[in-house]
Amino acid sequence: MRTEPVGDYAGLGGRAMTTTVVALEVPPSCHPLGAANKLVIAPGLLSGSLAAMSGRLSVGCKSPLTGGIKESNAGGQPAQVLARLGYAAIVLEGKPPDDTLYKIVINKDGVNFIPDNSLKMLGNYDVVARMQQEFGDKIACISIGPAGEMKLGAASIACTDMELRPTRHCGRGGVGAVMGSKGVKVIVLDDSGLDLRRAKDPEKFREANRQFVAGLKKHPITGEALPAYGTNVLANIVNEAGAYPTNNFSTGRFAGVHNISGETAAELEKARGGLATHGCHRGCTIRCSGIYHDKSHNYLTKQPEYETVWAHGANCGIDDMDAVAMLDRLDDDFGLDTIEMGATIGVAMEAGLIRFGDAEGAINLLKEVGKGSYLGRILGSGAAVAGKVFGVERVPVVKNQALPAYDPRAVQGIGVTYATSPMGADHTAGYAVATNLLKVGGDVDPLKPEGQVELSRNLQIATAALDSTGMCLFVAFALLDQPETFQALIDMINAFYGLSMTADDVMALGKKVLKLERDFNRRAGFSKEQDRLPDFFKKEILPPHNVTFTVTDEELDAVFNF
Amino acid sequence: MRTEPVGDYAGLGGRAMTTTVVALEVPPSCHPLGAANKLVIAPGLLSGSLAAMSGRLSVGCKSPLTGGIKESNAGGQPAQVLARLGYAAIVLEGKPPDDTLYKIVINKDGVNFIPDNSLKMLGNYDVVARMQQEFGDKIACISIGPAGEMKLGAASIACTDMELRPTRHCGRGGVGAVMGSKGVKVIVLDDSGLDLRRAKDPEKFREANRQFVAGLKKHPITGEALPAYGTNVLANIVNEAGAYPTNNFSTGRFAGVHNISGETAAELEKARGGLATHGCHRGCTIRCSGIYHDKSHNYLTKQPEYETVWAHGANCGIDDMDAVAMLDRLDDDFGLDTIEMGATIGVAMEAGLIRFGDAEGAINLLKEVGKGSYLGRILGSGAAVAGKVFGVERVPVVKNQALPAYDPRAVQGIGVTYATSPMGADHTAGYAVATNLLKVGGDVDPLKPEGQVELSRNLQIATAALDSTGMCLFVAFALLDQPETFQALIDMINAFYGLSMTADDVMALGKKVLKLERDFNRRAGFSKEQDRLPDFFKKEILPPHNVTFTVTDEELDAVFNF
Repeated sequence: MRTEPVGDYAGLGGRAMTTTVVALEVPPSCHPLGAANKLVIAPGLLSGSLAAMSGRLSVGCKSPLTGGIKESNAGGQPAQVLARLGYAAIVLEGKPPDDTLYKIVINKDGVNFIPDNSLKMLGNYDVVARMQQEFGDKIACISIGPAGEMKLGAASIACTDMELRPTRHCGRGGVGAVMGSKGVKVIVLDDSGLDLRRAKDPEKFREANRQFVAGLKKHPITGEALPAYGTNVLANIVNEAGAYPTNNFSTGRFAGVHNISGETAAELEKARGGLATHGCHRGCTIRCSGIYHDKSHNYLTKQPEYETVWAHGANCGIDDMDAVAMLDRLDDDFGLDTIEMGATIGVAMEAGLIRFGDAEGAINLLKEVGKGSYLGRILGSGAAVAGKVFGVERVPVVKNQALPAYDPRAVQGIGVTYATSPMGADHTAGYAVATNLLKVGGDVDPLKPEGQVELSRNLQIATAALDSTGMCLFVAFALLDQPETFQALIDMINAFYGLSMTADDVMALGKKVLKLERDFNRRAGFSKEQDRLPDFFKKEILPPHNVTFTVTDEELDAVFNF
Repeated sequence: MRTEPVGDYAGLGGRAMTTTVVALEVPPSCHPLGAANKLVIAPGLLSGSLAAMSGRLSVGCKSPLTGGIKESNAGGQPAQVLARLGYAAIVLEGKPPDDTLYKIVINKDGVNFIPDNSLKMLGNYDVVARMQQEFGDKIACISIGPAGEMKLGAASIACTDMELRPTRHCGRGGVGAVMGSKGVKVIVLDDSGLDLRRAKDPEKFREANRQFVAGLKKHPITGEALPAYGTNVLANIVNEAGAYPTNNFSTGRFAGVHNISGETAAELEKARGGLATHGCHRGCTIRCSGIYHDKSHNYLTKQPEYETVWAHGANCGIDDMDAVAMLDRLDDDFGLDTIEMGATIGVAMEAGLIRFGDAEGAINLLKEVGKGSYLGRILGSGAAVAGKVFGVERVPVVKNQALPAYDPRAVQGIGVTYATSPMGADHTAGYAVATNLLKVGGDVDPLKPEGQVELSRNLQIATAALDSTGMCLFVAFALLDQPETFQALIDMINAFYGLSMTADDVMALGKKVLKLERDFNRRAGFSKEQDRLPDFFKKEILPPHNVTFTVTDEELDAVFNF
């Protein structure tokens, strides 16, 4: 263990930091679970400051799921705390000599590695409870569940929220497996005795932040829809658009959508003493999160996100909100990506293990992962592996990572992002749904190929930049529609660091990050043929619009022409 | 079902036929288990004639294991019978509408598809016994076991031998899964009423064949070593060379080699009423096969091949010949590649499922595949998938296909073939062991990188040509050392077809086949980064010679510079 000055990596945050370290220091041919891989954990540029929405934590590594570079980020408290502790990044490297499990404690006095095999195979909820007993309430935790210890491809890294619950996850790409391969169960962060990070120009910073928040408040999505119903406000919208993948991407509308919509969930939450509007970290002004209680009015899980409800709901033909919430709770506890697990259970249903719509069966399947049974290990390895083991042809993955909650045939722009993002299929990498369906940042017909490549390209660039600030992606709705809010964000960064960046500089950063990622993947063996959707999206017609994915391979190959 | 004239594919046999059809007709991006993949089954150019050693059957497809093009060939009777029936190839294409299982019967009256769900999940031995009851003794069968029906990545296609036992397998690359995806359990071939294929110039043909056989007889390997002890004569030789991968490629010498050597096996076979010298098809003059009886002097399996004995023996730390023979029998019955299964059980041992050396444990693991349990499906999916499911770093695969029985650190020439063959790790694709260890075709130091690329390149070209003739690869020992025997083979082909090919033409054919295969893989998304051994062969030192694999990436990239 050593603490080093940030050196050449100075000025980088979030995804720019994790991607740069991985691209420069990790050999692309290494085994993702081997000593040569590194797990880089970085707060954003503005994390730990007064800046609103700046609580995203980035983790990066070579992905055990995709075999390419991976950045996955989450909300919750750790980014803010880590930044206040003064660390630009934590880098886990090498490989432990035996299977001892460690907790790492970081506070104002420094860093401590403490062996603690009593944590073995504990769920995230128990781990965090144990850390709370041991270190008090003023901590934030970054931890893995049994899935990460088993080094499974769908293993996530959990971040605690304001209530010290492990509900915010760096979900995608098996980052939890890499943390498991380093023998680290939990990182406990305690910023007691430390202050907010201060801007170089505090007055300008405060003013820019005020304008930024005002922009978010006045946008209909960040000011109304998300606070009221959370991300799952999308269920009805996407279903109406015929783009809500149902029964393992067999159709674009789900008959049971009403039972699992954001509106229904918010009602249930209020009725049962939960909370429909809530922030996942201090400094959040959108407050799209919530708290979900079970039938007995006891805490079960945080408000399940749109993609989670889709993955465990419509994609599995399940319209039981309590079942979906239970699946969300189990995913969080075992340390699993909800998108990957929903897609994998969909593949298991396609293989005939259980029938579509079998909520109890789905819960039992997920519990197998927690047990570490052979079946559980298959499922926890993700949809691509499960597809191989069960001999299934219709497996919705790109670069071995499961497609999220928008059918690329009915939202062709997001199909371009799924196909070409260096991350594998990932809606957050360039959220073309915004412009295709929500008409944010313009209006591009979701059912046609025209304009999708340019849309996805611009969004991927902007997102790579935004992921570097530590900002929640949802600020993008306002940034896309309100030039003055975008300028306010740039002003905030400039005031904080004493810089004079322009919008062009921000885009240049986004391009640089993407190029580093693409280059890593190329060196890891990816060619343009990996920038493709599975064949069946080009051949099978999706009801109700009866469309296939029609963006050509040549167009996909033009996404990174910059 | 339709029968077509051979058309543009005229003049192609074996691997040249299967590769050309797959390269021209199968979309490289298709799912290997989908309708667009094709399973091409072709006899060699000289199969069905009087030519000695001409009984190899080639199958080709897009591989479910590697995701690239695949050719896998086997001995046994089907190639001879299929050629006499007058078919240049069988092509299974499309996908059945339901899960009905078919048998295909081909005889002098034509081709018949017959649904037969009573065959479901039968082992190859039972399937063949049922076909024998139904169609008599004069048949040859091409069949799959439960592994192929489950569409597992290690599933093989079985060919019956002269005793009508399903002991010769197109083992590699999951070709059995593709046959399973087409709904075909068994192809029954009956050439009753049909004659040998006649040469255009019968006299020249007979004379060339005589010289060819004389060459084989006088070479020490094909004339003495292989007939006496079978392929497993290599065990002591490779072990002595420190290149016998032991305990999942952890060391190059196995303390228990004596108990599983070819010499020991031959003694056992003789003592128990089996047979140590035996041909796998009519027209074989080398007779490297044998018949293995159990302790009660009852037939158990054919003489297990060198790679099988290594895979289930040394690689798993098992030195019990009867256990290895039982594993061979189970592989043949379930329809599994012995190399892939031995490597996969080695990975399972590395993961701690059972300990190295546990013969009974290994048999129980293999039986899980026959049962189709979750564990069995993991193992039957091959070493790469098992490595992911069990979170193992040391997984000996290239292009997801398991490395065979020669450690590439101590036989660097075969390492070049493993890394660069379009087939994935495959010793038969360019058997540099011949020149590195056996000093056939020259002498290249096995422990040094010098000369290995040129050696592997030349052998890969020659092998691609030879695989197109239907000739057993073992004729290559004599061809490499005796120019006149090589000329006799060319004379045979010329006399048979009325051609005037030269040695250069043969090499040109080999180059053409390899280029088609490389191009298919490129279009399927392979880049030069897939032409690499796993990292650990470059980092971990192999005892007793304490060597790593030292051929550079740049040298590997030069293999196909022709």
